[in-house]
Amino acid sequence: MPKLDICFSPDLLPLYDLRGQVAVIVDILRASSTIVTALGEGVTHVFPVASLEECTAYGQQHGCLTAAERDGLPAAGFDLGNSPFGFLEASRPVRGRALTISTTNGTAALRRSLAAEAVVVGAFLNLAAVADFARQQGRDVLVVCAGWKGQFCLEDTVFGGALAERLAADFDVSSSDATLAALHLWQQGKTNLPAYLLQSAHVRRLNSLEASQDFEFCMRVDAYAGVLPLWQDDRLVDAALN
Amino acid sequence: MPKLDICFSPDLLPLYDLRGQVAVIVDILRASSTIVTALGEGVTHVFPVASLEECTAYGQQHGCLTAAERDGLPAAGFDLGNSPFGFLEASRPVRGRALTISTTNGTAALRRSLAAEAVVVGAFLNLAAVADFARQQGRDVLVVCAGWKGQFCLEDTVFGGALAERLAADFDVSSSDATLAALHLWQQGKTNLPAYLLQSAHVRRLNSLEASQDFEFCMRVDAYAGVLPLWQDDRLVDAALN
Repeated sequence: MPKLDICFSPDLLPLYDLRGQVAVIVDILRASSTIVTALGEGVTHVFPVASLEECTAYGQQHGCLTAAERDGLPAAGFDLGNSPFGFLEASRPVRGRALTISTTNGTAALRRSLAAEAVVVGAFLNLAAVADFARQQGRDVLVVCAGWKGQFCLEDTVFGGALAERLAADFDVSSSDATLAALHLWQQGKTNLPAYLLQSAHVRRLNSLEASQDFEFCMRVDAYAGVLPLWQDDRLVDAALN
Repeated sequence: MPKLDICFSPDLLPLYDLRGQVAVIVDILRASSTIVTALGEGVTHVFPVASLEECTAYGQQHGCLTAAERDGLPAAGFDLGNSPFGFLEASRPVRGRALTISTTNGTAALRRSLAAEAVVVGAFLNLAAVADFARQQGRDVLVVCAGWKGQFCLEDTVFGGALAERLAADFDVSSSDATLAALHLWQQGKTNLPAYLLQSAHVRRLNSLEASQDFEFCMRVDAYAGVLPLWQDDRLVDAALN
């Protein structure tokens, strides 16, 4: 039976051997939620990049939309910030466009996980798609929490617990203490996820930076149940369409 | 109000600035529980060392008892393993003796925390002593979980939650997601701590290696409520006696 494990910080990735595994990159607030939303709203593919300079360069080179934030705020000089609502505004059509996105924590986590057999992006928004993909692959899964500047984040961990619950029949979810803890936290919070995660320090930081509508949106389990951002070559594409 | 934070792995210590803080080193199974027991049973002081070679050398140099384990099993050629029961046996008087101890995870966590203003060893056995010391110091506290080979351990984390609950009136325990998660896990498990922690992968590993009496013993909250192993110069002494 394949195993589901959770890595609470990209800084702990050296402890794991990702070869042959499925890596699920999670940055609930907000990179992974935003990427799922973008693909769900018709963006063709996403180039995640580490620096603002790369973001500008990709935008010019590929003629694509640019999105960037630093420390939770939209960065100046880009088409979009890191809010999923940027992709929902009727005033800015995104369907058929490519996107390059730079984020503080999420991009770094993804870049450091490329040794895996398959790399996908997970959020509450596409929990069902991630679970289906994991079952179909039948490989060990490592949930890689982007965290906040390397530190443990409640919302990414609770996503790991939600995924573990969905996969409990087909995966070993009890041989890792990290998975057990995440399952417990998810089971505690799932009946009212927004209220539970509003305790989180990171959530409170986000809500003080920008409208809390982003937070509420990112909590919608399976709102994009069919969208699966999968890493291919140098970009994320919606595997459901490929 | 000083802050209580929890570091889930020694590998994450570079993210924290320990200067001016109290570091609480936790390796419930079993290094920190064993050190508390040793001092509680009259050992005069403890030299924690990283390698088996150092342990032998300290033993010869200081004429002290030696204790060592590797991967959860007693190491050959030493007076004691890493079981607290070694210090309770009538056949082996420890009162008045010094001890040098080498452990896989606990010693490494302690050595990597020496930038702190004060370094103490915490276990369920001496929870009250750790909480009293923290209150008396009035400084920020970082609980450093020894973990298992760098990975997250449920029992060390739950200790962090127990300490957070005791200090909640005097410390900020809500601005760190790690502390919030640990508090939730402790509150879930505290009514039957042994049963809760028996789920832990690390606990099951230990129980398969040695008698489960060690585990039951390490769960006894405040069995040595007055014992506080405090780092001084090159050794741990019982601060309650100094």
